[in-house]
Amino acid sequence: MAEFISEGVFSLSSPVSVRSYASVVGKKEGEGPLGQCFDEIVQDSHFGKDTWEQAESRFQLEAVSHAVRKAGMTKEDLQLICSGDLINQCIGSTFGLRELGIPFLGLYGACSTMAEGLIISSLITASGAVKTAAAVTSSHFSTAERQFRFPLSYGGQRTPTSQWTCTAAGAVILSACEGKVRIAGGCIGRIADMGISDINNMGSAMAPAAADTIRRYLISTGTSPADYDCIVTGDLGSVGSSLLKDVLLKQGIDISAQHLDCGAMIFDPDTQDTHCGGSGCGCSASVLCGHFLPALEKGDMKNILFAATGALMSPMSLQQGESIPAIAHLVHFSRR
Amino acid sequence: MAEFISEGVFSLSSPVSVRSYASVVGKKEGEGPLGQCFDEIVQDSHFGKDTWEQAESRFQLEAVSHAVRKAGMTKEDLQLICSGDLINQCIGSTFGLRELGIPFLGLYGACSTMAEGLIISSLITASGAVKTAAAVTSSHFSTAERQFRFPLSYGGQRTPTSQWTCTAAGAVILSACEGKVRIAGGCIGRIADMGISDINNMGSAMAPAAADTIRRYLISTGTSPADYDCIVTGDLGSVGSSLLKDVLLKQGIDISAQHLDCGAMIFDPDTQDTHCGGSGCGCSASVLCGHFLPALEKGDMKNILFAATGALMSPMSLQQGESIPAIAHLVHFSRR
Repeated sequence: MAEFISEGVFSLSSPVSVRSYASVVGKKEGEGPLGQCFDEIVQDSHFGKDTWEQAESRFQLEAVSHAVRKAGMTKEDLQLICSGDLINQCIGSTFGLRELGIPFLGLYGACSTMAEGLIISSLITASGAVKTAAAVTSSHFSTAERQFRFPLSYGGQRTPTSQWTCTAAGAVILSACEGKVRIAGGCIGRIADMGISDINNMGSAMAPAAADTIRRYLISTGTSPADYDCIVTGDLGSVGSSLLKDVLLKQGIDISAQHLDCGAMIFDPDTQDTHCGGSGCGCSASVLCGHFLPALEKGDMKNILFAATGALMSPMSLQQGESIPAIAHLVHFSRR
Repeated sequence: MAEFISEGVFSLSSPVSVRSYASVVGKKEGEGPLGQCFDEIVQDSHFGKDTWEQAESRFQLEAVSHAVRKAGMTKEDLQLICSGDLINQCIGSTFGLRELGIPFLGLYGACSTMAEGLIISSLITASGAVKTAAAVTSSHFSTAERQFRFPLSYGGQRTPTSQWTCTAAGAVILSACEGKVRIAGGCIGRIADMGISDINNMGSAMAPAAADTIRRYLISTGTSPADYDCIVTGDLGSVGSSLLKDVLLKQGIDISAQHLDCGAMIFDPDTQDTHCGGSGCGCSASVLCGHFLPALEKGDMKNILFAATGALMSPMSLQQGESIPAIAHLVHFSRR
């Protein structure tokens, strides 16, 4: 069971725990500061496939396979997968996971997908409808660049505020039982649109959504930033992260001591030339599964808020002169 | 609370009832056999907007507005919206509903979206995390044609097995309380891919998924087709509907007396030149909200199974030589 706290904010009263998790990343992500923490680093951006889209699908399948293996389960034990990605019609997910034959709910939350999947998986598990569910997502630098920006061979110059879409996938398996790390609650995001229309400044477009979600969770639960080891955002990057902290500070909430951003953590800004950091569904998913969930499991952290952010535009909406709506979903992980 | 019956199949043990619903359709849908039953028929395919994409967004917003008004609620009473559509990155939903400021979960289930949204909304409501949730979706002939097929001005010839994407939207509001019509249970679909790669024969690509989902629900719940007034599929059209009945009959399940297909119902095959019938997320959503839910509310029907089907390919996956994976999600509506 879950309990309604305020609009979109809930706590889980029956146990839903993290049973297993895994991350699979590309070569560049493996060379970054977190390189040691991922389950698999794939050197070939095609992952042995003919197309980048097929490669992205394989990243997802591989992440699920690692998580299932680490749990000591078989794929048949999984009763539900909630998954989505950035490619049109989410083919990274559907083609990657179709061979599993597991009940499937497709999501579109852009780079917020891991948090959205965790919210839906945990609430469906808490309802009693399933005993085991997985939240899965991926992104791929090359599928995202050609779809959202330019053909790679064009070699377009990247602006200083731009971020680098991670080639990465993550999978988290949840179970309806007690465990070391549980999902204590969450906050379902609302769409925020502050009128930003620069596709090379997505961090700024997403920061207001992250601020709204984090503020709502803290106020509704009567907690303060100091109650958490970390308040993690998905992929605001360095520019968006500064903006988030500024926006919340103006509302009387200082998260500067707790805030970390997966996009700012995954690459080395001095040597990897990614400008404002990483982005893409796979960025926050792989950093959650590679860095934060292990830290919780070991007991190095006790409580974290994981707020993944998504920019909900499309190339067509930008061509039609629209601004960028954004959303952030939040999950509260707690160590026993 | 919900109860696990078998993999993907659940029943709801705490009441989740249909509080309100609404449908908004385009001119051609309004001229069809069900024209009298929709809440609003919009003559202008641009719905007063500059682009078809903006028009589709307005269809969704209008459907939600009608449903909220019919429920005697205000928009602020809605605690969650689950929505998706066919346009890349689901901009029909996100741009349509961004002004509402309501917690939002984005879905991608192609034409299965209404059933997927009802499953997620009902289970999150049953978990206790929200008291009121809406499932919403839309499609638009012109946004779909230019994205999935040809520019409209090209005037491409349509093949006999093709279907006509409906310009339509539907919204269902669910509440955690007793009501005349409740959601009794459901079945989360599994991805089925039988190797069909003809984008003009989507009914055949989706029929195996519908058969799998309907069979699993009937067998897991120990019910037979005769226990239901109707077994409704989303948009298999005439070719896919025949195939569905044949596939199930070979497995010993005869649904010919109960089966109806929203795609086969929404247009007149003799006068409207739509070949195999309607399709698109808005097809099953508008027929559910315009025809079946009113019939349940009046008491003309007592139990129906609503299985919306989705084809999960993209133009790029077809260009890359992939077949069409499909899914069907099922919701069991029951009249007190």
